[in-house]
Amino acid sequence: MPKHALDVLFNPRSIAVIGASSQLMKWGFLVFHNMVRGGYKGRLYPINPKEKEIFGIKVYPNIKAVGRELDMVVVIVPAPVVPQTLRECAELGVKYAVIISGGFGETGIDGKNLQEEVLEIARSSGIRVVGPNTMGMYSSTSNLSLLMPPIPLRPGNIGFLSESGNLGTTMMQSAIINGLGFSRYVSVGNQADLKIYEFLEYFIDDKETEAILIYAEGLQEGREFLDIAKRLTRRKPVVIYKSGRTEAGKKAAASHVGAMAGSDHVYDAAFRQAGVIRANHSFEMVDIVSALSRQPLPKGRRIGILTYGGGWGVIASDFCGMYNLEVPPLPPEVIREMNKFMPPHWSKGNPIDTVGTLDVNIFRRAVETVLECDEIDGLLVLGIGGYSFFIHYYRNFSLLTNHQLSQMKTLLCDVEAQIAKDLIKFIDKYNKPIVVTSIADVVMSEAARILEDSGIMNIPSPERAAKAMASLADYGEYLRKSGGKKR
Amino acid sequence: MPKHALDVLFNPRSIAVIGASSQLMKWGFLVFHNMVRGGYKGRLYPINPKEKEIFGIKVYPNIKAVGRELDMVVVIVPAPVVPQTLRECAELGVKYAVIISGGFGETGIDGKNLQEEVLEIARSSGIRVVGPNTMGMYSSTSNLSLLMPPIPLRPGNIGFLSESGNLGTTMMQSAIINGLGFSRYVSVGNQADLKIYEFLEYFIDDKETEAILIYAEGLQEGREFLDIAKRLTRRKPVVIYKSGRTEAGKKAAASHVGAMAGSDHVYDAAFRQAGVIRANHSFEMVDIVSALSRQPLPKGRRIGILTYGGGWGVIASDFCGMYNLEVPPLPPEVIREMNKFMPPHWSKGNPIDTVGTLDVNIFRRAVETVLECDEIDGLLVLGIGGYSFFIHYYRNFSLLTNHQLSQMKTLLCDVEAQIAKDLIKFIDKYNKPIVVTSIADVVMSEAARILEDSGIMNIPSPERAAKAMASLADYGEYLRKSGGKKR
Repeated sequence: MPKHALDVLFNPRSIAVIGASSQLMKWGFLVFHNMVRGGYKGRLYPINPKEKEIFGIKVYPNIKAVGRELDMVVVIVPAPVVPQTLRECAELGVKYAVIISGGFGETGIDGKNLQEEVLEIARSSGIRVVGPNTMGMYSSTSNLSLLMPPIPLRPGNIGFLSESGNLGTTMMQSAIINGLGFSRYVSVGNQADLKIYEFLEYFIDDKETEAILIYAEGLQEGREFLDIAKRLTRRKPVVIYKSGRTEAGKKAAASHVGAMAGSDHVYDAAFRQAGVIRANHSFEMVDIVSALSRQPLPKGRRIGILTYGGGWGVIASDFCGMYNLEVPPLPPEVIREMNKFMPPHWSKGNPIDTVGTLDVNIFRRAVETVLECDEIDGLLVLGIGGYSFFIHYYRNFSLLTNHQLSQMKTLLCDVEAQIAKDLIKFIDKYNKPIVVTSIADVVMSEAARILEDSGIMNIPSPERAAKAMASLADYGEYLRKSGGKKR
Repeated sequence: MPKHALDVLFNPRSIAVIGASSQLMKWGFLVFHNMVRGGYKGRLYPINPKEKEIFGIKVYPNIKAVGRELDMVVVIVPAPVVPQTLRECAELGVKYAVIISGGFGETGIDGKNLQEEVLEIARSSGIRVVGPNTMGMYSSTSNLSLLMPPIPLRPGNIGFLSESGNLGTTMMQSAIINGLGFSRYVSVGNQADLKIYEFLEYFIDDKETEAILIYAEGLQEGREFLDIAKRLTRRKPVVIYKSGRTEAGKKAAASHVGAMAGSDHVYDAAFRQAGVIRANHSFEMVDIVSALSRQPLPKGRRIGILTYGGGWGVIASDFCGMYNLEVPPLPPEVIREMNKFMPPHWSKGNPIDTVGTLDVNIFRRAVETVLECDEIDGLLVLGIGGYSFFIHYYRNFSLLTNHQLSQMKTLLCDVEAQIAKDLIKFIDKYNKPIVVTSIADVVMSEAARILEDSGIMNIPSPERAAKAMASLADYGEYLRKSGGKKR
């Protein structure tokens, strides 16, 4: 297979950082710091006529002085200087420019003219440009953390494209807190040259990327985007959060990315047709892509709900209903089986409510019994880590002896941790998705950590868990209808 | 004013805990522990024929042996023993029984009969019963932490009623993490005797309670509930999360609280008419009540949005649009004023985007300039604590010297902390609500702590922040229309 043109962008052998700085509060410092600290695998050349050395790395006065071929330059200089900088790059045969600098198409007429100038230089020289006004990019294969914010991303199988650097940053923060890893990330900026659909196209054959996450505002090249998305979704799931849904949002998007946004219903229908899963809230993006990047797809829409208590079961049922999932009754033989070990007053139905028993071992047996049932396609587990959360309070606020605390840890946290390990095994053993809800991510439990180390996110509410499960079901259905197959 | 009948429930002078235990993993241990640790102000009598002393407190073999008048008993014994226990209480003139025990109306026909028996004893003896199947209650005025889960609630002005103990527990966990305080909490359980509307009625004249939060599934006595809610909302805000919205949810609710749920649209209309603010997701409850319990009400629906970056501004605008808030343009004189200190490429409109400047002082000046504008009724501030979050990463993952770290802390965290202090002052000075969004609650920033210590929650997403602001506007409008006045 011939190399994809963007291969060099995601695996550059050499990068010059024009505007790298040793001054703490400059983006030229922060971006360069992230690249060095991220352990970039290629050669790194900071460029700044006023500096000699940054982090022990020799600084060059200009890119010509580097005296080597450069795959990429990062541009962090004031906007008016960018065209001249880019011309110098053109002379030296630079392949990619990532332009962090703002003050282009996102501002007034002068900025738009400057952006046009940049684009002309790029077109005539063959330099491909990311941005301008990008917050950077990440690539796991070359340890490239070319980012404004200091986010220590971990490698993983998610490719992420964002039409807002700010939103992208927040989502990546949320993702790393929840244990997710990325293959690639691009803050696409103003998309003067490289468009979001071109990065998307790269993901089709990118072996590192198994699930795709997109934040979009304008989607200017909607047709190209949807055509590529359609090819992609037959093999890899694509999750999108598209804003500009109301008049107020469209106006804000127009001012932010300079884009005209179309009717939201049109987008909705187009995404559905292309098999793109749409998130309705920003943080849902992370839930959904975490599920799609890790879990098997359910064979149908029949969901079991296992809960420590009734309220969360009701809410999860409500939202299953909203997302067209079924919460079917349990077959009599499953109820008979569960009667053998469940507490006497358990719900004897679906949702399966363990009615506050402190014997958390029961939870594990219940999970396996439900997964064995042919009439259940996927399981929502509400509350793992909940009792570990108790321990947090007892440690800080109790009359318990150390011995009692240690006993309690054994009976609650250790058992929950064991259940977490079992859940991971069960997903493979039964080839059914298990979506886990826990608010324990705030005070991280061992159970939550075990799940997250295995790529299983603890979704913080039953409403969001139901949406993640529905997304798995939707994507499974789309693949069956379209004849696609998840890679 | 004559004392309200429920005054004794929320301020009991003496409580016997029937079934108190020294055995670690029994609810009789956990509940009694919480009561002792919570610092209950009255006299506490553990009752258990098999125990001598728990936490150094003398245990009585039965309540008669206490030899004193008891305002309240807590019942944590197996369901079949509850009627006889209650009869003994009746003989001794006990006023209130909080029945933690499960196995009543929420289970099969035997449980229902048992509940009927309990109710008859209550009716004939005059004992008022909370539950059965309650997870307990809290009252700030008597330091009464009569709770199954170990949650160290802090006193505050929110009264909370929940038809699910499980959901109530989760919401209280979320509330304490976010710095909210409670006046009263009741997990109403099966409502065999005392109904949710009776507790609601108590809040009308309860000086401790200034905002009310409700999780409801069945709302069996809908008429009574709405009549009282209508009286309440003319003086105090009432926030409800009502589940049982879809068929699947209704079925689950029917099995959980034994209640028939009506049509969701009917509830929607009834709540609106009664001025009750409805949350659409569980955690939104906490956002909304935190705003209503602390912030001034906006005079209109015109909202300013201040953001570190474009994406969050677009999403906040989107959801303002969804909730019928306006995001009006800024008057030319405000833009001119802001041009004096904002970075050159700021958005020059609303949302007010500081386009990633690292000079966070700008944020503070922008806040005050917007609040001074007569054409803006309330402000969404997106991102306070965001830069403090950066520091978290630099501490753990950087090449920075200690001196640089300390410089950065001064320039980012300390300035953000100062802005947080100013925001608190501005709310009073301009008498306009400021709703703050930050994902910094995960790695708590000083700015977030300052805000929360002052009762201002850091709402974790722009979507939820818009909903909280819309709830303030809705309640303000309701009061103007109904001629009510917030206490």
